[in-house]
Amino acid sequence: MAIGKIFVANRGEIAVRIVRAAQELGIATVQAVSAADETMLAARLADETAKVGPAHASKSYLNADALIAAALETGCDAVHPGYGFLSENAAFAAKVEAAGLIFIGPKPETIAKMGDKAEARREAQLAGVPTVPGSDGIVKDAAAAQAAAGAVGYPVMIKAAAGGGGRGIRIADDADQLASLVPQASAEAKAAFGDGGLYLERFVRRARHVEVQILGDGERAIHLYERECSLQRRRQKVWEEAPAACLTPGQREELCASAVKLAERVAYRGAGTLEYLFDEASGEFFFIEMNTRIQVEHPVTEMVTGVDLVAWMIRIAGGEKLSLSQADVALRGHAVEARINAEDPAADFRPHPGTASALEVPGGMGVRFDTMLYAGYQVPPFYDSLLGKLIAHAETREAAIARLARALGELTVEGLPTTAALHLALTRNDDVRRSAFHTGWLEEWLKGRPLADDRVEPGQARMDQTEAGKEGR
Amino acid sequence: MAIGKIFVANRGEIAVRIVRAAQELGIATVQAVSAADETMLAARLADETAKVGPAHASKSYLNADALIAAALETGCDAVHPGYGFLSENAAFAAKVEAAGLIFIGPKPETIAKMGDKAEARREAQLAGVPTVPGSDGIVKDAAAAQAAAGAVGYPVMIKAAAGGGGRGIRIADDADQLASLVPQASAEAKAAFGDGGLYLERFVRRARHVEVQILGDGERAIHLYERECSLQRRRQKVWEEAPAACLTPGQREELCASAVKLAERVAYRGAGTLEYLFDEASGEFFFIEMNTRIQVEHPVTEMVTGVDLVAWMIRIAGGEKLSLSQADVALRGHAVEARINAEDPAADFRPHPGTASALEVPGGMGVRFDTMLYAGYQVPPFYDSLLGKLIAHAETREAAIARLARALGELTVEGLPTTAALHLALTRNDDVRRSAFHTGWLEEWLKGRPLADDRVEPGQARMDQTEAGKEGR
Repeated sequence: MAIGKIFVANRGEIAVRIVRAAQELGIATVQAVSAADETMLAARLADETAKVGPAHASKSYLNADALIAAALETGCDAVHPGYGFLSENAAFAAKVEAAGLIFIGPKPETIAKMGDKAEARREAQLAGVPTVPGSDGIVKDAAAAQAAAGAVGYPVMIKAAAGGGGRGIRIADDADQLASLVPQASAEAKAAFGDGGLYLERFVRRARHVEVQILGDGERAIHLYERECSLQRRRQKVWEEAPAACLTPGQREELCASAVKLAERVAYRGAGTLEYLFDEASGEFFFIEMNTRIQVEHPVTEMVTGVDLVAWMIRIAGGEKLSLSQADVALRGHAVEARINAEDPAADFRPHPGTASALEVPGGMGVRFDTMLYAGYQVPPFYDSLLGKLIAHAETREAAIARLARALGELTVEGLPTTAALHLALTRNDDVRRSAFHTGWLEEWLKGRPLADDRVEPGQARMDQTEAGKEGR
Repeated sequence: MAIGKIFVANRGEIAVRIVRAAQELGIATVQAVSAADETMLAARLADETAKVGPAHASKSYLNADALIAAALETGCDAVHPGYGFLSENAAFAAKVEAAGLIFIGPKPETIAKMGDKAEARREAQLAGVPTVPGSDGIVKDAAAAQAAAGAVGYPVMIKAAAGGGGRGIRIADDADQLASLVPQASAEAKAAFGDGGLYLERFVRRARHVEVQILGDGERAIHLYERECSLQRRRQKVWEEAPAACLTPGQREELCASAVKLAERVAYRGAGTLEYLFDEASGEFFFIEMNTRIQVEHPVTEMVTGVDLVAWMIRIAGGEKLSLSQADVALRGHAVEARINAEDPAADFRPHPGTASALEVPGGMGVRFDTMLYAGYQVPPFYDSLLGKLIAHAETREAAIARLARALGELTVEGLPTTAALHLALTRNDDVRRSAFHTGWLEEWLKGRPLADDRVEPGQARMDQTEAGKEGR
């Protein structure tokens, strides 16, 4: 059941990535286009295009029925969902299969299971993969909280059971702080949510976001080592690397082995990513969630392993077994990726669509620019602001950062403000060069505030840590 | 004596390559520009430019005194010669050193020694590296020729001692043919050159051109595996690969080890290439000559080894010892390079300068385009026709060729004819895909003639085989 024609149910740079992978495999492509996307690069590169609806994604790239109808009409036998949009929608995957098409991704039930955070956490625990320790259920009072905190381990976050989005979260570093914070927190939760119930979760101070890339064929799974994506702004990754400079070789081995255990437990098929929080101080890592799709930052893994992840997704979906063994996957050098967004860093990163009136693309050894741009392309205002990803690969992390800086200097996009200058500043930053950062670092740095070692003060956490590592799409 | 500022004594894509490598090492650059080259890409990317003379290379890029004066005037402490022009000119290297500048390349005496074919052959023999067997000196008559041929081995080429450029060469497959050809050849040589003296050399039928990349620090040398460059037109390489698909692992090991022996024998410093003829039928290889500079096709080696050759040239010239051991250099996947020339394949590859009115550069995984082009660049008519090199790297040779085809499809250069279409045809050719070719294959194929197994008939060789593998620059 080899695939002959793929329907690309996405847009932007990932659609270009998929079309290229299909072409190299000798597979025809049909590119889905909304009314705003008929001139996009993926549409120019694909063999055919198919209109799937108006500009607004809800009526086009999120319109399962329209996408499937277009795939059938154009004689496709498979659908690649990319990332974002319907890529982690189990119902869409099931509909694709019900229509007799191959969904290039995991089974719908795997998407559903791993998309449910509580269930994913349970699966991880059953696989022996560490998750963030927490109280089992509600803690009634300060004494109960102290008893539970003994098992959870300090520092702990005190969270409102009825809360969400980080509201009302407090941090306690020891039992005394906990005893004094619980009554306040409970009263505030009752006032805010009508429910004073609290639970505890280990707080990972200065957490780093690491994630393991997995490939599975439904039976066997391998890892392709990890990435670090701690440089984030508003929970969006901004800069990614492979491998994670913060891990020792022993930690790397343990982390990656844990991901393979979980992936094999759920008989994972295709490319997937397990996200973890890493506590550099203690060396502990905790599974947070799984992304059951290709990720924006997959190229850094491709650069250091030499493995074509998107091609493997397609080959596995076509029925091939994974011929790579774990021993076939070796790390070579270091890769860093800068997300180039159509945003104005001078105006609080306001998205800024417009026409790329001129474009000069960086080149040379170890440089890859995965982009949706071409000279004259009019970036539509309806979608996210990612224009492309500039990736630099070199023998060492230091050389990769120097290469990224060099490549950023060559990149010219006229007509649009981009985040390239932000990345150039990051390449010159001592903390970035020393890999001395965490998931809160970038936002603090952007505020221009000096970064103390104890940025997150007891009782002042702003953000739910399990959300901090979550990629918006 | 770390280098602080490099004078780039070259132009075109290799100048861009050198500027990029320097930037990544934190080294300033001054780009030499002739009167025709002030707008070239390397001039735009370098920190400074320095005028070195009029358009004609003899008065600019070949003008040693002007180059050295400009390097001194701009405060450079090192000169990178690139390839072609003065890169293998021992007198230039010596002048650079005499001016107190670092020559980024081998010692002048190494350039002189290895640039002399007879001396290079002698060094190879002393290092135990096989060279093309030949008669020691002139054979006087048919009987002497037959006696010599016993040691040389059939088939043998009969060459005029006073000849050159392949004139008057004949091939004998056995002693009888030899006896009948010697009198004719001698008479013809006498008529043409006034000297009937002949000598014999083993003829490698359907020879393949393989070459080994070397890095040395003046004491220790390592190899970075080999390239194959058998697809040539008029002795210019057109398509290059790494590794050579025609070698067995044992042959590869033997070939590369021989190159290291020769490089260490001459205490080689910098990047260099040892060129060989490979006889696929017998599995024998024969050293032809050494190129004591970076080569056009070096990127395929960089792709499969991950080692930055130009950066290493600079680091070694700056006094660093080679920290790479042979065990650090491993092959990953396969890379192919297509030379994109400003030539019209429909008009017998006539060079065709002009303005690149629009440019679209291929991208994505494993694709590298080292080019001098930018949109709007006016290619001057004074120099060679190389616009850039499109390199594709993938897990296997088959996948690399598919990737090159995909990338060629994305390349758009408006305003100039290029050789991209020729390369696209090569990616689709069965012989190319099966790696069933030799140094004469491309010219035969271009003539549209069917390729018989015995293309080179006895007595009809057109070309000196030791020249067939020689790159024009």
